[in-house]
Amino acid sequence: MSEPYDAVEVITTKRDGDELSDRQIDWVVDAYTRGAVAEEQMAALAMAIYLRGMSHREVAGWTDAMIRSGERLDFSALSRPTSDKHSTGGVGDKITLPLVPLVAACGVAVPQLSGRGLGHTGGTLDKLESIPGWSATLTNEEMMLQLEDVGAVICAAGTGLAPADKKLYALRDVTGTVSCVPLIASSIMSKKIAEGTGSLVLDVKVGSGAFMKDLTGARELAETMVRLGQDARIRTVALLTNMQTPLGLTVGNALEVRESVEVLAGGGPPDVVELTIALAREMVAGAGVPSVDPADVLASGKAMDVWRRMIRAQGADPDAALPAAAETHTVLAPADGVLVTLDALAVGVASWRLGAGRARKEDPVQAGAGIELHAKPGAVLRGGEPLMTLHTDEPNRFERAVGALAGAYVIAPEGSRPDLLPIVVERVV
Amino acid sequence: MSEPYDAVEVITTKRDGDELSDRQIDWVVDAYTRGAVAEEQMAALAMAIYLRGMSHREVAGWTDAMIRSGERLDFSALSRPTSDKHSTGGVGDKITLPLVPLVAACGVAVPQLSGRGLGHTGGTLDKLESIPGWSATLTNEEMMLQLEDVGAVICAAGTGLAPADKKLYALRDVTGTVSCVPLIASSIMSKKIAEGTGSLVLDVKVGSGAFMKDLTGARELAETMVRLGQDARIRTVALLTNMQTPLGLTVGNALEVRESVEVLAGGGPPDVVELTIALAREMVAGAGVPSVDPADVLASGKAMDVWRRMIRAQGADPDAALPAAAETHTVLAPADGVLVTLDALAVGVASWRLGAGRARKEDPVQAGAGIELHAKPGAVLRGGEPLMTLHTDEPNRFERAVGALAGAYVIAPEGSRPDLLPIVVERVV
Repeated sequence: MSEPYDAVEVITTKRDGDELSDRQIDWVVDAYTRGAVAEEQMAALAMAIYLRGMSHREVAGWTDAMIRSGERLDFSALSRPTSDKHSTGGVGDKITLPLVPLVAACGVAVPQLSGRGLGHTGGTLDKLESIPGWSATLTNEEMMLQLEDVGAVICAAGTGLAPADKKLYALRDVTGTVSCVPLIASSIMSKKIAEGTGSLVLDVKVGSGAFMKDLTGARELAETMVRLGQDARIRTVALLTNMQTPLGLTVGNALEVRESVEVLAGGGPPDVVELTIALAREMVAGAGVPSVDPADVLASGKAMDVWRRMIRAQGADPDAALPAAAETHTVLAPADGVLVTLDALAVGVASWRLGAGRARKEDPVQAGAGIELHAKPGAVLRGGEPLMTLHTDEPNRFERAVGALAGAYVIAPEGSRPDLLPIVVERVV
Repeated sequence: MSEPYDAVEVITTKRDGDELSDRQIDWVVDAYTRGAVAEEQMAALAMAIYLRGMSHREVAGWTDAMIRSGERLDFSALSRPTSDKHSTGGVGDKITLPLVPLVAACGVAVPQLSGRGLGHTGGTLDKLESIPGWSATLTNEEMMLQLEDVGAVICAAGTGLAPADKKLYALRDVTGTVSCVPLIASSIMSKKIAEGTGSLVLDVKVGSGAFMKDLTGARELAETMVRLGQDARIRTVALLTNMQTPLGLTVGNALEVRESVEVLAGGGPPDVVELTIALAREMVAGAGVPSVDPADVLASGKAMDVWRRMIRAQGADPDAALPAAAETHTVLAPADGVLVTLDALAVGVASWRLGAGRARKEDPVQAGAGIELHAKPGAVLRGGEPLMTLHTDEPNRFERAVGALAGAYVIAPEGSRPDLLPIVVERVV
């Protein structure tokens, strides 16, 4: 079959800074998915997009073409409204775990299709898979039944959703074209729109541990995604949230599950509680039930009930003991003073090196590996007090993990204060 | 074996506008040649180089790494000095054919390793292969013997020279990264330096039929290549020459051989003669024998003698009849007046469509196909007079060839003059 366009023409159009037409975009995404556009051609196009950018019309067309590369889910038959959340990924970002049952307990169905982690940010599925017996794989039918019954599902996205994005994401990962607003926004939103949620809340992280290191980039990404959601008639809101320092006091798979359960039990670190409630309020409002206050629901214990039912529905015992790493190493505060910096990226890389994350998508992860923080920015420390505890099954990993932490924490004279953004920095609608 | 660098790091360095280190360049060129850097990774890097550029240090390092990917020839054992010439490619550019025997007749050995054509510019080997029995393939030993004996060789470059460039050129061709000064300059100069010539003259074309459409780009390419040649201690000069309109009165393989023989016989179109002599003077001077005037040598018939010996040495009879196309179609002047424009690119594309060129490197070419021009810019024409004759073996090709000529020629009222650059526009040393 002869093709209506030539890949080189599409590439040179973008290379020279011109806009791609809707038809060029439809063709190139489809032809790439079919294999008629080669990996090296899409790599050159992705780099041209990276360096030349895309207009909103182009990003919307690209997103739409990726959605049309696969199936679309439809939750309109459910008896409850739906809401979904996406985080751009951060260190210690376990928020999905308490958030999904909390929003479900507020009367909103949450179909949370998640991924595994790559690099220094952890994946929601990796965290839940540290619970013995828990299964990430559900058929569309099982997901629908669980949503109707429990109201909450966290599971792996099926391969049928936006296959073009799957192929392109793997390519971007090896060609230095990941951190690009049009490609990130279309990747996230093609999956979220194909999932068929009625409303969507985006948690766009900003800071060292996030894709977007500064507010300008995070705001641009948030605005692009919110507009794409609204174009697709999904009520979409984004919160820009702090990823300068890890969320909560744990980084790692089982460690973060434990902390999430603490939040559901009414405890947990204040930053995790604050962000969970802020996102839950947005989701509940987006789903059209703003009269329910998630803070009250959390305090009532109903979110914990949903969590237990959700874990049980996916094959696990919510009361089972979580795996723990075989070895620990404690890092001590080097001096008296105030902890003013605890860098998210460095902690994320250290946790990854301990075995909590993976470098390639086929790598295994350790359930027990990670980092427990004993202090967060603002804490007053005495020299020699424990600052953090590193966990791993393989003690030869400690050295490289400690290396990643060089310069990651700064202790300043007493009276100093950390210069940090608030947890929720900005709301983008 | 573990690699000392990561391809993604090299790509992102260039993507972000930073300079690659010599070691990064050495590694990425070598790893790509070995297959440890994937085609899609090199495609992304090539696009980043296209859009971010390269410093002279980077281009020099890249050229050097491509040279070291293969073998180097050495002509220092020859009894004569050597000189070589490279043209960036144009329409009707048969200059190599009369030039090589002319310079050899001046006492300079010319090892001319050439390529086949792709797209609208013809290849020297395709032209010579229209002579029945002529062989483009010589071993390095045969080449050396012929250089010592005849003084002139035009043959195919062996696969041992700059294999990195061969692989990269094929990739650039399908990824929209061909027309980029650092990549063009390093591609040409890696092969020319590996060929081991003592001096080099570059014919950098400028105008519609050339890679470089304007003087600024052509000058930048010429300056980059001259500096690379000088870095490698090869006496290197570039002439910027006119490619706004085809060279001579013929475009196509056998048609251009016929015209080249006319030049060697003391006739031929003035522009072909002028450029042949201008380039020959540079080559002879570069080789250190400036006292010989190529114009006198051409007039003496000695260049024709060398041509005949060169053709015979490569298996063909210089007196054999050249193939002619089966069909012709004559395009007539539409009105009285002065021919002020005859666009090189359009004529090149028309000739290509007639079968003289190829779209893919595995395609065959027709020996007899091409275009004979009956008038050049500046000619006074009467409406209905023949303007050009199209030649092909397949008459169904005429329609698309004529289509390519739409707007290619402009006839203006008598007294008008074409606005053209001179044949030799500028000399870059």
